[in-house]
Amino acid sequence: MKNLILLAQSDFQSLDVQGNKKKAEKIIQTAKQENVSAVIFPQLFLCGLPHGKVLTRFPQIIKQNIQALNELAKLSNNLKIIIGFIDKNYQNSLAVLSEGKIEKTINLDKNEFYKTEICGKKAGIVCFENGWNENDFDINSEFTKKIQIFVKENNFDFLITPSASISRTGKEEKKHKFLKELAVLYKCKIIYVNATGANDALSFSGMSCVYDKSGELNALAKAFEEQNLIIDLDTKNEINTPPMNLDNFEEQQNFTLNYEYDLKRTYLSVVQAIRGYFKKCGFERAVLGLSGGLDSTVCAVLLTDALGKENVLGISMPSKITTSGSKNDAQELANNLGISFFEQPIKDIFDATSKTFENVFENAQKKWSCRYSQSYTNDNIQARARANILWGVANEFEKCIPIATSDKSEAYMGYATINGDMSGGFAPIADITKTKLFALAKWLNKNRAEKNTIPQSVIEKRPGAELAINPKTGKPLLAEEALMPYEFLDEVIWRIENLNQTKEEMKKSEFVYEKENKISDEQKTQWLDKFFKRMSTAHYKWSISAPAPIIDRHSINSYEYVQPIVSSKIEY
Amino acid sequence: MKNLILLAQSDFQSLDVQGNKKKAEKIIQTAKQENVSAVIFPQLFLCGLPHGKVLTRFPQIIKQNIQALNELAKLSNNLKIIIGFIDKNYQNSLAVLSEGKIEKTINLDKNEFYKTEICGKKAGIVCFENGWNENDFDINSEFTKKIQIFVKENNFDFLITPSASISRTGKEEKKHKFLKELAVLYKCKIIYVNATGANDALSFSGMSCVYDKSGELNALAKAFEEQNLIIDLDTKNEINTPPMNLDNFEEQQNFTLNYEYDLKRTYLSVVQAIRGYFKKCGFERAVLGLSGGLDSTVCAVLLTDALGKENVLGISMPSKITTSGSKNDAQELANNLGISFFEQPIKDIFDATSKTFENVFENAQKKWSCRYSQSYTNDNIQARARANILWGVANEFEKCIPIATSDKSEAYMGYATINGDMSGGFAPIADITKTKLFALAKWLNKNRAEKNTIPQSVIEKRPGAELAINPKTGKPLLAEEALMPYEFLDEVIWRIENLNQTKEEMKKSEFVYEKENKISDEQKTQWLDKFFKRMSTAHYKWSISAPAPIIDRHSINSYEYVQPIVSSKIEY
Repeated sequence: MKNLILLAQSDFQSLDVQGNKKKAEKIIQTAKQENVSAVIFPQLFLCGLPHGKVLTRFPQIIKQNIQALNELAKLSNNLKIIIGFIDKNYQNSLAVLSEGKIEKTINLDKNEFYKTEICGKKAGIVCFENGWNENDFDINSEFTKKIQIFVKENNFDFLITPSASISRTGKEEKKHKFLKELAVLYKCKIIYVNATGANDALSFSGMSCVYDKSGELNALAKAFEEQNLIIDLDTKNEINTPPMNLDNFEEQQNFTLNYEYDLKRTYLSVVQAIRGYFKKCGFERAVLGLSGGLDSTVCAVLLTDALGKENVLGISMPSKITTSGSKNDAQELANNLGISFFEQPIKDIFDATSKTFENVFENAQKKWSCRYSQSYTNDNIQARARANILWGVANEFEKCIPIATSDKSEAYMGYATINGDMSGGFAPIADITKTKLFALAKWLNKNRAEKNTIPQSVIEKRPGAELAINPKTGKPLLAEEALMPYEFLDEVIWRIENLNQTKEEMKKSEFVYEKENKISDEQKTQWLDKFFKRMSTAHYKWSISAPAPIIDRHSINSYEYVQPIVSSKIEY
Repeated sequence: MKNLILLAQSDFQSLDVQGNKKKAEKIIQTAKQENVSAVIFPQLFLCGLPHGKVLTRFPQIIKQNIQALNELAKLSNNLKIIIGFIDKNYQNSLAVLSEGKIEKTINLDKNEFYKTEICGKKAGIVCFENGWNENDFDINSEFTKKIQIFVKENNFDFLITPSASISRTGKEEKKHKFLKELAVLYKCKIIYVNATGANDALSFSGMSCVYDKSGELNALAKAFEEQNLIIDLDTKNEINTPPMNLDNFEEQQNFTLNYEYDLKRTYLSVVQAIRGYFKKCGFERAVLGLSGGLDSTVCAVLLTDALGKENVLGISMPSKITTSGSKNDAQELANNLGISFFEQPIKDIFDATSKTFENVFENAQKKWSCRYSQSYTNDNIQARARANILWGVANEFEKCIPIATSDKSEAYMGYATINGDMSGGFAPIADITKTKLFALAKWLNKNRAEKNTIPQSVIEKRPGAELAINPKTGKPLLAEEALMPYEFLDEVIWRIENLNQTKEEMKKSEFVYEKENKISDEQKTQWLDKFFKRMSTAHYKWSISAPAPIIDRHSINSYEYVQPIVSSKIEY
């Protein structure tokens, strides 16, 4: 008999205990058919992730997941089952099921670990990553040292580490380096099982793996896909190609415009996030505005790949400021993707709104003398008219939601219209900066089965919302004229999120943009001041943002970052 | 010389270290002028509350608050200063400043406590409430027992307990009972200092107080107001009238429609929350739609009291469904309040939008055969046209934001329109249920300086959004026809939040509504099913809700409750 273990790299639904249990039963059936000795599920499998604060409000879910665990235990004759659940004290736990019973529960919140027997061999069970927001894998931590002693004392044949680990920039590389080093340090085979699929902001990467005690990769499951990977403890096993380079990882110390290493992962993670959100919420169709700009273009490609071209509707909604180039780009993109597309001018809504507004403002200014001499009101009418049309379609057609196409650079700058382009049922690219989106667009043109879907002019033109005319140029106002060069802006974001730098420290640092463009200290200070001033008043917008996946190493996604709206007086 | 202590019941701004420090300096100056021996500030005063995840991203704020602490220490000659700050390890801490230096720092996250000398007397310093989300004051906890020993060993003259405690239904009553019992148990005077003012969702109640060792109330500061309350340790001190009954507290075990005990507090807490949010964000003016319904009516009164009538603009935005009664009620309310008011029909925007939509839908259905035969699209056009007008005013006039008037009952049911009545810069009544709003409206009519501001018909008519006609009655659809009786609905909410009951448990319990109205088991089951089904698809709306104050004992405010959007398959 072979020494087989099934790594159940699977997709759970947050708090759907019955659904998750049914999935577990199906996998257990497969495990039995395949005559494996053990099946290992991800951490927290029965309740899924995230939980928010739901478990304390609805404690019956805990009871349901313990009930489900007891039922699964009955299936554990001749099969060892290791599965994540939440125990009655709300603790993130693992259960080892065998011989029809619960052999042991392991409290991960208390860093417990356990030894057992699988295939007649000695196995240790331990988790190195507790929860989904841990970004650090430290080979020298107290905990890894403690486990080193545990491994040594028990002379394990292998160590099992179930996980539920979300995907982020650089995280897989770091994690695999850690697992590999751990195997060598412990002189012990490491079996790592991860979740896949997406729930709200969390897109789980899969890529379950085995590292031999020499540190050699022995097995690697697919990325961002469910897979029942059966491994033979005595041989080398299936190794799928990862979407990033797992060798030679070095922590990124400086900002770079070279995003190449992270683009395939980014693509797969977003596509999975869209698919998971739609499926788990019961949606099928997406409608979005196609402006001919970068953001909506990239969104359209990602949505098409996630949902199928028959489920994506792009609408071009030109105003008098929209250029014919933009209209053509939108049309060409839609043709290339094969999605539904039509043009619907917003003139009628704009005119009626604008006329009504004039009445309203005349009445309001009888009382209030504080009317702006220059305002963004007309710009915003356009953005809101468009969102209104998209929500109209979503209200009128089954299982359809509109897409918010804002990106991360704009989110930081509050450069999106409330109830306008900010608004949607899902925001696929909200955690991707503009410079990375340009790189992603090029990557998509090169790497999708159908090449060059995105019109070259979309990638070449400088971004602008086409909501207003720049009085200086007489042409549509470019985003960079209103803000600052995106290369600079994105580096400020990177320095905040990754280096936690102050404005003063940034002034003293050399930006990538400065290496290639001479800018005065005055200009740099002005951009930095503008950045922090704009960001200080953007927190309200962050608080009402559409749901979006976490993609980057750090984010302003509300699942991991909340900033009080009244915190506008921070000295950055 | 008298034994005087200044209780600095003050309002901090979240993360505005410089501003908070300046306020502390001013109070310290007052303390010196008044020859007091000590000044006690609230917990976490220098950084304020809430922090979200800001401190780890911008660690310079910690440095700034330690720097500020050192500067304040220099002012502590001949004056003992006790003040909350965050220490370099991100720990919620208190500092005791004296003789120009930091005498001691006390780590509250580690439940540290400390003894010192004030006015030549022995004083203990300890916190019983760490953070803002603690709702329980347990006289029998391990910690209170530990402190009992500490008090006994040191034979303290008094115990100081700084706090930063937000206001909630029933919380003051419970807290004061706790403090009173504590004084008796410890046989020791208790000096409690709370914050006041509001930051985002958190409205701090003030009501700093002193309980003598006999349990008698010796001093009580104002509720929801800044106050430098100077107490003499040797006499009885100022006792302000509290907005609730602090005696005879009993934990509420059952749902009741008698909200009387909590209405004045609710009123003061919301008014403070509005005022704090506007002031700290730099806003002055509010614009809201006045429908003649209960929600917008109550909001208008609260806004007027918070911001002044000159800063509130109400707009009646009738559609063809709006009744003349509603229009008259809106007008009458505005007259009574003395706020600006005018009528602006939405017909033009509605017609243009509706016409554009028909084009769009015809185009869309060429591809998608899943158009609803009955939809809410036209209802939503009305709600969105109104929000559009309000945001237009906010865009066009300085320091102005629109108000989202949705209430808590509607939030649970997802009974509000995205980018419509859900949308606004602030949502004053989002944590108040409909039945409580009726009670609050009556209370306002009776207790404000100007009586009967709210037209009686607003309080008497049954609520309806007036967005659609009920085909059965030919009249505007009532909310209760679309949902269920509000008395029933609000009890479901109460049972979820306070008893954590399952649907099954609710079926077996007798509701208040059932006592007065015979309903069949079938009817009850149908309402419960409808409630949980609607709630299961409302989580997206919760996630994009406008900022709102926490008012109730428990809430769905994102500062304390997050539920995954994909968690739609929970078995309630």
